[in-house]
Amino acid sequence: MTERQLTGLATDVVVFTISEHRLRVLLVSRSRDPYAGCWSLPGGMVPIDEGLEECASRMLREKTGVHGVYLEQLYSFGEPERDPRGRVVSVSYYALVPPGRLQGVALNGDTLGWWPVDQLPELAFDHDAIVRMAHQRLAAKLEYSTIALQFMGERFTLSELQSVYETILGEPLDKRNFRKRVRNLPCIEDTGERFRAGKHRPARLFRVTRPHRVEIIK
Amino acid sequence: MTERQLTGLATDVVVFTISEHRLRVLLVSRSRDPYAGCWSLPGGMVPIDEGLEECASRMLREKTGVHGVYLEQLYSFGEPERDPRGRVVSVSYYALVPPGRLQGVALNGDTLGWWPVDQLPELAFDHDAIVRMAHQRLAAKLEYSTIALQFMGERFTLSELQSVYETILGEPLDKRNFRKRVRNLPCIEDTGERFRAGKHRPARLFRVTRPHRVEIIK
Repeated sequence: MTERQLTGLATDVVVFTISEHRLRVLLVSRSRDPYAGCWSLPGGMVPIDEGLEECASRMLREKTGVHGVYLEQLYSFGEPERDPRGRVVSVSYYALVPPGRLQGVALNGDTLGWWPVDQLPELAFDHDAIVRMAHQRLAAKLEYSTIALQFMGERFTLSELQSVYETILGEPLDKRNFRKRVRNLPCIEDTGERFRAGKHRPARLFRVTRPHRVEIIK
Repeated sequence: MTERQLTGLATDVVVFTISEHRLRVLLVSRSRDPYAGCWSLPGGMVPIDEGLEECASRMLREKTGVHGVYLEQLYSFGEPERDPRGRVVSVSYYALVPPGRLQGVALNGDTLGWWPVDQLPELAFDHDAIVRMAHQRLAAKLEYSTIALQFMGERFTLSELQSVYETILGEPLDKRNFRKRVRNLPCIEDTGERFRAGKHRPARLFRVTRPHRVEIIK
């Protein structure tokens, strides 16, 4: 390979969670140039002897302490001018973290924070395009897969699941149609337990049977 | 960036077509090491000043003479040991070429040929994994998008469209269910013309209204 063909290789991870009924993205405040003081996705250069997914997974663990969650390659961004330091291709990933597993990362920290996807600050590089694509992918997958289950805790009601769909899609859904759609999902089962909130009829509690698996629904 | 962080960047394109009722992939016989004499996907190193999709599109045009067809980024393959020359990440794409546009590439040439996806020769690097993922992506997209229309010529019958689905999925489909499913596709329209083959009832001829656009069907 000639020098002209060598490029920088980075990975950036769009880490999603849902809290306070908002879809949020983990951002890091940059301490160094380029874009010092700007917010960006957690990520960095891929060491020459590390696999891509392995690297993304490690960065996620180092930034959030979270591991064993859903992580999928999103897209590679490689416009020649996207990084002022020279040619750097970003192989980006997205990860889904259930709200219950967020210990230790402040919602609005100074250097690390969970920003609502519809109220992002100005982002470094082309990271706004990466977040937009990740959000689109996630919303599209709601329609034909069980990906939303990645956000659910150990036990959940169908109302809670519907709220996750609505939060990601940014629009209310019809309760009856929603229930018809999810009743036969392949990865959830009725625990037999009931949850009572206030004066409402007790709601059935479900659980995910295969936690890190996303199934395609035909 | 340190030297340790610089990697080789390649792009490889899985070019699909359908001919003789088989899904086929364009392969190139390698004249040089590594893997001299082996078949591989068309591709090569990405010049430092060229965009990823731009490069994939150019390679497709140079190998097949075809341009203006459907081209989508598939996945980036980056296992550290995938290329014996050193770290090379392949940002792979897949392209769909309608059978009518294949002038000039022999079905079974010595250095360039269209191989049936279910009868591939031994491939260089991890190209068999790239082809498998591209085939899976294509088959999955049949279920929720209009991607199959990319293989259709100017005018086609619904039987021809069904044959494309069956060829990609590798299984027969029920005619009645299939027609119900495609009748309301957003990108096709009845031309008003009829096609008569032998003694059969004349079949309606359809056309694609937005040739290079793939729409998601909810």
